[in-house]
Amino acid sequence: MFKFQSLMSYMMPAHFGPRYAGPGTSGWYRDVTTMVIPYVTDREKLAAYLPEHFEVAEEAVITVYFACNKQIDWLAGRGYNMIGVNANVIYKGKEETLEGTYSLVIWENLTDPILTGREMQGIPKIYADIPDHAISQNRWTTNASHFGNKIIDLSLSNLRAPSLDEIAFMHQKSQGKDTPMGWRFLQNAGKEGVSEYTTFPSENHFKQVMLGEGSVKWNQLSWEENPTQYQIVNALADLPILEYRPALMTKGATNLLVPENMPRALK
Amino acid sequence: MFKFQSLMSYMMPAHFGPRYAGPGTSGWYRDVTTMVIPYVTDREKLAAYLPEHFEVAEEAVITVYFACNKQIDWLAGRGYNMIGVNANVIYKGKEETLEGTYSLVIWENLTDPILTGREMQGIPKIYADIPDHAISQNRWTTNASHFGNKIIDLSLSNLRAPSLDEIAFMHQKSQGKDTPMGWRFLQNAGKEGVSEYTTFPSENHFKQVMLGEGSVKWNQLSWEENPTQYQIVNALADLPILEYRPALMTKGATNLLVPENMPRALK
Amino acid sequence: MFKFQSLMSYMMPAHFGPRYAGPGTSGWYRDVTTMVIPYVTDREKLAAYLPEHFEVAEEAVITVYFACNKQIDWLAGRGYNMIGVNANVIYKGKEETLEGTYSLVIWENLTDPILTGREMQGIPKIYADIPDHAISQNRWTTNASHFGNKIIDLSLSNLRAPSLDEIAFMHQKSQGKDTPMGWRFLQNAGKEGVSEYTTFPSENHFKQVMLGEGSVKWNQLSWEENPTQYQIVNALADLPILEYRPALMTKGATNLLVPENMPRALK
Amino acid sequence: MFKFQSLMSYMMPAHFGPRYAGPGTSGWYRDVTTMVIPYVTDREKLAAYLPEHFEVAEEAVITVYFACNKQIDWLAGRGYNMIGVNANVIYKGKEETLEGTYSLVIWENLTDPILTGREMQGIPKIYADIPDHAISQNRWTTNASHFGNKIIDLSLSNLRAPSLDEIAFMHQKSQGKDTPMGWRFLQNAGKEGVSEYTTFPSENHFKQVMLGEGSVKWNQLSWEENPTQYQIVNALADLPILEYRPALMTKGATNLLVPENMPRALK
Repeated sequence: MFKFQSLMSYMMPAHFGPRYAGPGTSGWYRDVTTMVIPYVTDREKLAAYLPEHFEVAEEAVITVYFACNKQIDWLAGRGYNMIGVNANVIYKGKEETLEGTYSLVIWENLTDPILTGREMQGIPKIYADIPDHAISQNRWTTNASHFGNKIIDLSLSNLRAPSLDEIAFMHQKSQGKDTPMGWRFLQNAGKEGVSEYTTFPSENHFKQVMLGEGSVKWNQLSWEENPTQYQIVNALADLPILEYRPALMTKGATNLLVPENMPRALK
Repeated sequence: MFKFQSLMSYMMPAHFGPRYAGPGTSGWYRDVTTMVIPYVTDREKLAAYLPEHFEVAEEAVITVYFACNKQIDWLAGRGYNMIGVNANVIYKGKEETLEGTYSLVIWENLTDPILTGREMQGIPKIYADIPDHAISQNRWTTNASHFGNKIIDLSLSNLRAPSLDEIAFMHQKSQGKDTPMGWRFLQNAGKEGVSEYTTFPSENHFKQVMLGEGSVKWNQLSWEENPTQYQIVNALADLPILEYRPALMTKGATNLLVPENMPRALK
Repeated sequence: MFKFQSLMSYMMPAHFGPRYAGPGTSGWYRDVTTMVIPYVTDREKLAAYLPEHFEVAEEAVITVYFACNKQIDWLAGRGYNMIGVNANVIYKGKEETLEGTYSLVIWENLTDPILTGREMQGIPKIYADIPDHAISQNRWTTNASHFGNKIIDLSLSNLRAPSLDEIAFMHQKSQGKDTPMGWRFLQNAGKEGVSEYTTFPSENHFKQVMLGEGSVKWNQLSWEENPTQYQIVNALADLPILEYRPALMTKGATNLLVPENMPRALK
Repeated sequence: MFKFQSLMSYMMPAHFGPRYAGPGTSGWYRDVTTMVIPYVTDREKLAAYLPEHFEVAEEAVITVYFACNKQIDWLAGRGYNMIGVNANVIYKGKEETLEGTYSLVIWENLTDPILTGREMQGIPKIYADIPDHAISQNRWTTNASHFGNKIIDLSLSNLRAPSLDEIAFMHQKSQGKDTPMGWRFLQNAGKEGVSEYTTFPSENHFKQVMLGEGSVKWNQLSWEENPTQYQIVNALADLPILEYRPALMTKGATNLLVPENMPRALK
């Protein structure tokens, strides 16, 4: 009969044993390139999508970000691409108040991290085809589509090195504020379910940061075009882009498992 | 603030509203072609993978099955392919005893049904590239691979129509025994988790059934070759194929939502 | 040293020997489902794309067709999808006059038949992602995209069986007129090149034919979105859809190698 | 009627106009990472695959190389992966003698450069699924497969910076010897065909070069497993690996269009 080994991490199918935790694996994503495009949206409309205990932050900012992740230790050095959408929020729980970002959705082009992200950390990851970013005539572009139907186009142009003032400002803004939060939710199917808020901090080590002008184009989709995601895409397409904030391109590495700051449920 | 609508079904991200349940959708998979390849394996080795309350059935039979699913209502008429592995088992719970099959693993080539299967029904679905079956010189073949590394090869040959005796025998064998069971498991990440056994009956409407000789070839894989699934593949490759039973090819339709026999937790 | 075997067919790399011509292979595509959507366009605009010796036929009709090809003998029983565009033309050569269709372009989702089609028959095949057709609420749909950018959407609705009169009419119309023609062209790169017109007849064996209403939606694309095909897509998008003709759905088999009617160069 | 514009480059379908030659395009591949794995093989066996006028060079060396090409100007900044096989040869033509490499085959995971390579330069490119290289525990790996069946596994380990002597030696060896050659071949289908030898020089600008130990594992495949390429794969698998030479990893950029050294037919 199958028995759990203590202290190990399990996912379905659990009966074949725990997830690997040996020499080659770690929390490191060793080669990560990102495009980060924040914009101000309508406060009321955004608030309608935040679950209990979350409020829109001082500024109603949404950030659409692309990451081309390569050399990922837990995937034996392979990679995948993602396009995510965060909202700036304040979490006011029973025991703690946190300022950070709430994960509205993340599209990824590989199922393996989608499963771990959803089930272990409560990150609402779903699938899309996402090509590596293209760079032509100093313009960076990428997109996401599913079933052949476009979800979003992203681009970044006029890239330039930040000034010292800008670096200082970015540093100050990020102090204690890069707390990504999510909602780990599993409906009661038989008798049991899960509904809890989580945080899953990571540590970025940048080798290069550039500032630029970002642009995002959401599509409206019908149920026939994307039957599993159309309501998500349309909700995001309906959040107006009131004003773009300076966009970023970064290159560096990311560590998802920071010992002193491990993923946990919010209180 | 986001609020749940009662009686609706939700999955992450839940805050954009419930899953669609309108006119175009249903439980019907309207065009399903399968290859079903059962074989006897070692009873002790198989038993080692069954969780508490499950026992190997009278015969230690594993069934590897491929389905090419098309015209699926909830995917707006699209399709996907799957290769699954079942074990014949007896469930002896606190309140009920059931004879049926326990789902050891299912590979699918589309993320959407992987997420619903895992989270709603507790079916241990994971991703693989699975081509449509090829038919050449009266031999049916398909395979599964991930990251370019082969997991399994399947084939079916010498297909013939069953005799009336064989039809009667298949009918008798399947009486009350096509109860598929799974283990809906979500590890405690923050404070909460799920661990319950489920059953998810479906109804097959065959238009054609053929008998044939099946063959299965499992690969052994290293962590480097398939870091997220190698222990699953190797466990299955280590279960000896002691004797093949007659294999099947079927064409027809399947309904996953049978009103009088809905998915539920085992007691 | 490599030497050619006589009577065999060779493609690059030729030095490893001829293409296979053994037991499993043939010209048969044994399971073919098509959507055929003809429409009248502007005669002058269409004529601008026809090379010397070709004229627009009595009616300036373009046909967009999708085929989901399965169980193809020369691919050992595998399949692929295609979306092609034909124009009704008259070929007036030095020695012969032929009425038929001129292949403007074919997108296919598998490279192997693209290479043979281009190099052996002079069919202008290029690559696109093309899903199997979806069928939902009695509407058939499919699409083509490349680099994540949509090229075309196709749909077919209100399918019904043809009347006897319609069958007779279709039969009459197709008499001697299903002559597909192309332009086998290879630019002089070093010293040599090829430029000749070809015909590549095939034989359709239908098991089912339905009439319906077709719809085609072409996208306009920038060089950045589809650098290798944008001029093709935009040219086709610029040909106006003046009037749809009755569309077809067919199921059956196709033989590409009809002994008494083999591919050949036009005279 | 369609007419050619002079001085422009055309490919099928030619009737929609020439290939783009505007601002964003060039011969530059701006971000290229390679693994280069040479080995000595059997001289007689290799010679059997060389066409007339080619002889095996002083050493019967085959080089298997992988390139992860990104930021390619003519693809509007996109990329693709390739695994190629070269043989060290001497070309003894009627008018010139050249030492260089003969391209036995190149697998690529994008159809667009396959078509241009075959038709414009005579490089025997064919399709395979080729993932980006993975890097885990200081080992670089990649592979190629088609229809789910593995063609080749490549790996590179023990990477180290070269010594000054090694750099000098590599520099000396490459003097005048990086002349890649191919056989542009198009069978007579109608009346016309092409058969000519070509050279297609490129210019590499390395930012990093590392030495290491390479390893190559060829699979044997049946017609059923890979009906369009099995004879190619098996021929290469049958060339013995007598001795590995030092392998390379390089990072840099490549220019395919060097004005003073353009692709041309051999004399």
